[in-house]
Amino acid sequence: MKRLAILGSTGSIGVHTLDVVRQFPDRFKIIGLTAGHNIKLLQHQIQEFRPKVVSVVNKELSEVIQKELLPASVEILDGVEGLIKVASHPEVDQVISAIVGAVGLIPTLSAIKAGKAIALANKESLVMAGKIMMEEARKNHAQILPVDSEHSAIFQALLGHQKEDVHRLILTASGGPFLTLPMAKLQEVTVKDALNHPCWEMGKKITIDSASLMNKGLEVIEAHWLFNIPVEKIIVQIHPQSVVHSMVEYIDGSIVAQMGIADMRIPISYALSYPQRLHLKLPHLDLCQKGALTFSPPDPERFPCLKLAYQSIEIGGTMPAILNAANELAVNAFLEGILKFTEVPSLIQRVMTGYEVKSAHTIEDILRADQWAREKFKTILERGKFC
Amino acid sequence: MKRLAILGSTGSIGVHTLDVVRQFPDRFKIIGLTAGHNIKLLQHQIQEFRPKVVSVVNKELSEVIQKELLPASVEILDGVEGLIKVASHPEVDQVISAIVGAVGLIPTLSAIKAGKAIALANKESLVMAGKIMMEEARKNHAQILPVDSEHSAIFQALLGHQKEDVHRLILTASGGPFLTLPMAKLQEVTVKDALNHPCWEMGKKITIDSASLMNKGLEVIEAHWLFNIPVEKIIVQIHPQSVVHSMVEYIDGSIVAQMGIADMRIPISYALSYPQRLHLKLPHLDLCQKGALTFSPPDPERFPCLKLAYQSIEIGGTMPAILNAANELAVNAFLEGILKFTEVPSLIQRVMTGYEVKSAHTIEDILRADQWAREKFKTILERGKFC
Repeated sequence: MKRLAILGSTGSIGVHTLDVVRQFPDRFKIIGLTAGHNIKLLQHQIQEFRPKVVSVVNKELSEVIQKELLPASVEILDGVEGLIKVASHPEVDQVISAIVGAVGLIPTLSAIKAGKAIALANKESLVMAGKIMMEEARKNHAQILPVDSEHSAIFQALLGHQKEDVHRLILTASGGPFLTLPMAKLQEVTVKDALNHPCWEMGKKITIDSASLMNKGLEVIEAHWLFNIPVEKIIVQIHPQSVVHSMVEYIDGSIVAQMGIADMRIPISYALSYPQRLHLKLPHLDLCQKGALTFSPPDPERFPCLKLAYQSIEIGGTMPAILNAANELAVNAFLEGILKFTEVPSLIQRVMTGYEVKSAHTIEDILRADQWAREKFKTILERGKFC
Repeated sequence: MKRLAILGSTGSIGVHTLDVVRQFPDRFKIIGLTAGHNIKLLQHQIQEFRPKVVSVVNKELSEVIQKELLPASVEILDGVEGLIKVASHPEVDQVISAIVGAVGLIPTLSAIKAGKAIALANKESLVMAGKIMMEEARKNHAQILPVDSEHSAIFQALLGHQKEDVHRLILTASGGPFLTLPMAKLQEVTVKDALNHPCWEMGKKITIDSASLMNKGLEVIEAHWLFNIPVEKIIVQIHPQSVVHSMVEYIDGSIVAQMGIADMRIPISYALSYPQRLHLKLPHLDLCQKGALTFSPPDPERFPCLKLAYQSIEIGGTMPAILNAANELAVNAFLEGILKFTEVPSLIQRVMTGYEVKSAHTIEDILRADQWAREKFKTILERGKFC
């Protein structure tokens, strides 16, 4: 019986994780759940999975929940402290890190420091503090298993093969909803257009990141840290059918790829059950029904975010944290109708250009950079001179 | 330094193996070579690779070779005895079994019994005597590494994953030159048409087998023995681009595939260097240049040989040896212009139908079945009532 805590249980990854847990009650037990503002769903999850401890975003929400529950049936915490307590709870074996964005960093790091196995969906934490997280993972024997379908694919394509034989990693990208849109129309796209992903159903932030290919850029940085592969050996290929989830090319010209239907329960279940697999009740991929699989290089003009991500990790130090914070705010601003889609990369670039990179030895270095970028972003936005 | 013997050094696999050896003189040393009738090429190979021992098909050819060589520079043998001596030579670490057809069985088995590592291209030996060979391999700690691109792909897609999690093996088939030919024209195809494979340059026998899909049928049986997977869990998909060399589907819906350019030096080098890989000087696969990848189920009407192969292994015992012998003679008869292409499966079926299956406990059981099928084939052919 593996005892789990899910950070971000009401998000897309959290819900899919609980669906896997629901299918295998003999294998998994939920110890902890954490959520943001979706209290209604969280209450359902508490009723169904009976965790020992739950954390929500603030005191007020924790009181809302407490009122509805039988006394003493579940411990209710709140804030960052609550997240940390759930992530490092002594009864937890594995933490599913599925909070979106920079806010996932501290609780994920706490889980690592507590030596928990990590199923990592929160790629932003690795983007911001990859070196620190991987060092802590080594030190504390905390295995980090990828949840992203691309990284799960690469993880699977590396298993049993020799690391020194890797020629490069090939991350596939669907290209999102704007892959073939005339460039002139790109600045007019609406939030609804951008949220209409052709292959995957995901949360809002990652869906916008997928439309801009920033998601792929963050994944390049994530893969770099997760698999200890130089970033110049990680390339991106557009593969609109989302059948091949990613690949590893070896020095002899052999490419090992992992494929499947576009359902996050597959990589989630693998991160939970590795080295075994679970017999999921999902339709299998039928390549004969899938039509043709195609691959093409990404267009740097259409997807400037991808280049910004490469630049940030090539510069190194705290620059990826700057990229990440600026992107989070830019995506929010786009979702709120404040920025046009094409202004997202412009604004990130402005924030990056104005930053003097620091070395990233401690988590405080990272948090300072994150804070700087957020303030800088707001200043630029307030001045309204971002175009 | 790995010391090699190549059984069938002048065939397509043999020549490609020597090309790999030529690129890595610090890793491999040729101890033994064997060839059929291509004495001129064999002499070149002897001059270049300086083996200790060589075997040819018969006494006369061995004398032809001996005349050309400096005395005592290389030991020249002949016949089956010669093959066995080369295959089990005490100085040999690994035997590349690349003789085509049933004649490869006895020397491959000798190499296994001598505990050599085997790089297996001679699929017919596994088709005929898979159970015996795998048992002997276990007993003698002889590792059998596949050379066929499909089996190398499956081998690579199984590495690091759990055997009990395999849902099925998916062998890909290019479909050969007659994939889209109108059925009515199939009986009129010439030897030249059949030898014109769209993707791979190979020897004559395997090229004809590829056109009829018998090759894929033999590979299903080979995969069954090599990976100890029930034959009902092995399926074939037509993939005309020959980019995905084969796949393993796991119980969670994950498919792990191996891809590459259509060059036999890749799987050969892997069988020679496993678990490492060699940095081959070959162009890498560029999926962005490859066009679309497609998959479809094989048409049983167009490719009756595939069904015959499945039937033979489902019946079991000595039946696959009957299939194999009948196919060898039918392919020869087609190459000699005696049979039409569409008569190949008819004749194999006639031979199989007339056979009362035996259990296959010993190699003598296998050889008797092989002999029976060859005689039966000739009888049917002589009577001329094969349509």
